Amino acid sequence: MSRPKPLSGFPELTPEGRIVEQHVLDVLRDTFELHGFGSVETRAVEPLDTLAKQGEIDKEVYAVQRVAAEPGTPAELGLHFDLTVPFARYVLEHAHQLAFPFRRYQIQKVWRGERPQEGRYREFTQADIDIVDAGTLAAHHDVELPLVTLGALERLHVDLGLPPALMRVNNRRLSEGFYRGLDVPDPPAVLRQVDKIDKIGAERVTDLLVGDAGLSLAQARSVVELASISSADESFVEQVQRLGVRSDELDEGLELLADVVRTARQHVPGRLVADLKIARGLDYYTGTVYETELVGYESWGSISSGGRYDSLASDGRTTYPGVGLSLGVTRLLAPLLGRGLLVPTRAVPSAVLVSVQSEGTRDDAVAVAESLRARGIACEVAPRADRFGRQIRYADRRGIPFVWFPGAGEVKDIRTGEQLPADAGRWSPPADDLRPRVRPAGTGSAG
Amino acid sequence: MSRPKPLSGFPELTPEGRIVEQHVLDVLRDTFELHGFGSVETRAVEPLDTLAKQGEIDKEVYAVQRVAAEPGTPAELGLHFDLTVPFARYVLEHAHQLAFPFRRYQIQKVWRGERPQEGRYREFTQADIDIVDAGTLAAHHDVELPLVTLGALERLHVDLGLPPALMRVNNRRLSEGFYRGLDVPDPPAVLRQVDKIDKIGAERVTDLLVGDAGLSLAQARSVVELASISSADESFVEQVQRLGVRSDELDEGLELLADVVRTARQHVPGRLVADLKIARGLDYYTGTVYETELVGYESWGSISSGGRYDSLASDGRTTYPGVGLSLGVTRLLAPLLGRGLLVPTRAVPSAVLVSVQSEGTRDDAVAVAESLRARGIACEVAPRADRFGRQIRYADRRGIPFVWFPGAGEVKDIRTGEQLPADAGRWSPPADDLRPRVRPAGTGSAG
Repeated sequence: MSRPKPLSGFPELTPEGRIVEQHVLDVLRDTFELHGFGSVETRAVEPLDTLAKQGEIDKEVYAVQRVAAEPGTPAELGLHFDLTVPFARYVLEHAHQLAFPFRRYQIQKVWRGERPQEGRYREFTQADIDIVDAGTLAAHHDVELPLVTLGALERLHVDLGLPPALMRVNNRRLSEGFYRGLDVPDPPAVLRQVDKIDKIGAERVTDLLVGDAGLSLAQARSVVELASISSADESFVEQVQRLGVRSDELDEGLELLADVVRTARQHVPGRLVADLKIARGLDYYTGTVYETELVGYESWGSISSGGRYDSLASDGRTTYPGVGLSLGVTRLLAPLLGRGLLVPTRAVPSAVLVSVQSEGTRDDAVAVAESLRARGIACEVAPRADRFGRQIRYADRRGIPFVWFPGAGEVKDIRTGEQLPADAGRWSPPADDLRPRVRPAGTGSAG
Repeated sequence: MSRPKPLSGFPELTPEGRIVEQHVLDVLRDTFELHGFGSVETRAVEPLDTLAKQGEIDKEVYAVQRVAAEPGTPAELGLHFDLTVPFARYVLEHAHQLAFPFRRYQIQKVWRGERPQEGRYREFTQADIDIVDAGTLAAHHDVELPLVTLGALERLHVDLGLPPALMRVNNRRLSEGFYRGLDVPDPPAVLRQVDKIDKIGAERVTDLLVGDAGLSLAQARSVVELASISSADESFVEQVQRLGVRSDELDEGLELLADVVRTARQHVPGRLVADLKIARGLDYYTGTVYETELVGYESWGSISSGGRYDSLASDGRTTYPGVGLSLGVTRLLAPLLGRGLLVPTRAVPSAVLVSVQSEGTRDDAVAVAESLRARGIACEVAPRADRFGRQIRYADRRGIPFVWFPGAGEVKDIRTGEQLPADAGRWSPPADDLRPRVRPAGTGSAG
């Protein structure tokens, strides 16, 4: 076999990149669990007819079929393309085993047969949180969810130097209530045009609202004016009210969004704004909608999106409303790793290389290693009983900071050259050296 | 949508089961990293022609193709059916970015289009460790690997009450060297018959060796005698020598296997035996081979297998020999979970439910929750400002042991009823209550 070529759209990380990814996934898991979300994993496949119901995406679905299937048999299964569709199915299937409101996080790969390009992958990892109730779901969960995701992104910002996040939030009841107050004929159609403002600009959208959606010029201008409102505090409410449109649904939407903004200002100040042009394309959203950018990297698009859906799942008798946020882990990490913006302090877990003086004394080295591991210190035993200089160079090449000499009972910090007597039952490396850490590139080296 | 039916062969865990699985995966990851293994994940798909090369399994491969592909286009990709084939490809593709000997673990799902039955799944999780070098790989790695896997299984035995493991080890050089010493015509063919002893018995294998493999009855009896030898110490060496067969390859094999047994006796006493009937079907093994059973659950088959392969990957110029062990996580867990033998102390991460006196004071409850989370205490805020009795019952239903009353500044252990004043900036639950723990069923309740 000659050297295999990568498959376009299926990114694979080096061991260094994987250390960064693991760190990010650990922070997400820890944050989600601290907020009382439990983990769920669903199978990778769903019946194709379930997947195909999500109209806008069915062309990208990968079908799955046994190679040994009878030729001509139509495929029945497909790989999931997000974690929302499988989760909705999981809730229906396992409802009798779940306690509602059910809080779950789900970190898994998803697959889409897209044309590969930067920021678009055929296999990528998503991290979703959702709260789902049976019957009705209280509004305060819409306020709660951004705190969880922004809390996780803030930890990544502070610990890893990830760019800061900015979440933009709107509420469809606010927008659609405003449109109803304006007496426009088809509020959802208006929302679909508003969704294009970032791409084609406000003027072009005004034209489309008049030409395609049948609005008067005055109505279209009001719609675009509403979409131009954004604020980091509750002042957006007054700005909307100044437009002079009234409806009960609008008032409800304003109150719900004001709650989100007020609470976020208190707990994650500067990280969330009300932005009334946010629409989100997916039809199943019915209330709050979220999008999130990394500040300075807005061109990457939204790295975390979601919203409230009042009836994603229903078994005919019970409807399960929910609110969810999905974080694109690969979308977030691949460009940061590709540009070398995040690097681990070393490429291996080992803090210590236990040297071997001769093959006859390898057992002594293994005993030292076992003693270190019993106290949580990752280490490996030198693969060859080379000259010590070579064994030190071997550690250096891997970024392992310490070399242990079982014969002498000494340990050397190969970065400083300091070598001291040490007892394998008591010695510990400095806390910073215990496991590989992740840091922004160019902020000093530990290895 | 009515209640969806499970897909046969694609097991899905309840949130409780997933807590157990996460605990097991955490122990595996921690053990692997303590031994200096770094994590790698490979993409889920490989080119079908790469997968098809592994002859004995290609009928079980799932092909993957875009639903939108031109009809009649042959599929080019398939889901991986193990982690060895993708890892061999990964080593070749990324060799220039890896430091050899390369120590990696890989925990991922794999897919096989098998007929579903107990212990056989179409989607399941494997946890593999391998050490791969460029050119040659030192023999002491064959000794090292069982210590890692048995170390992990021992932690699961002690911490979770998993049944104890017993690893059976042989060396193909020993067996094939013995057959060569006996002057049999085709040693690998003999090995394939010996592999059937557990299934069809020694007598039937003797018949096959004479009938199919062309051995004399005396040769066949020697082969079966060799296969009947097993020992928990190095005494197997003398037992083999007493059979009076000699060859250099046999001596090498004996020495290699004796090293494995001696070292294992020292570090994981009672958990590894030399068992000379172990053959392992896969052709790529060239030396040490491993199989592992749970004591008392031998009928489940091997839960961890592997061996040495001297040329799994080669790019024409460099050959990469390796030694690996694969642990069947789903195979291990599904029956234990299905029989209710492992249960978590609670079904949710939360240690505390922060109660809400009225919707107007929800912010106070959120502030208490944030304060607890900042110190690593998982909690959730009550979804409804019900009567406190109802909120306590809500916590009880989820197994959450503590309920906080922000108004009174008190916390109640709902198992004992004890309620005490507490400061959210300082109070901690007992260490045992901090996160859900896993215990064998019937060993007392914590929730």
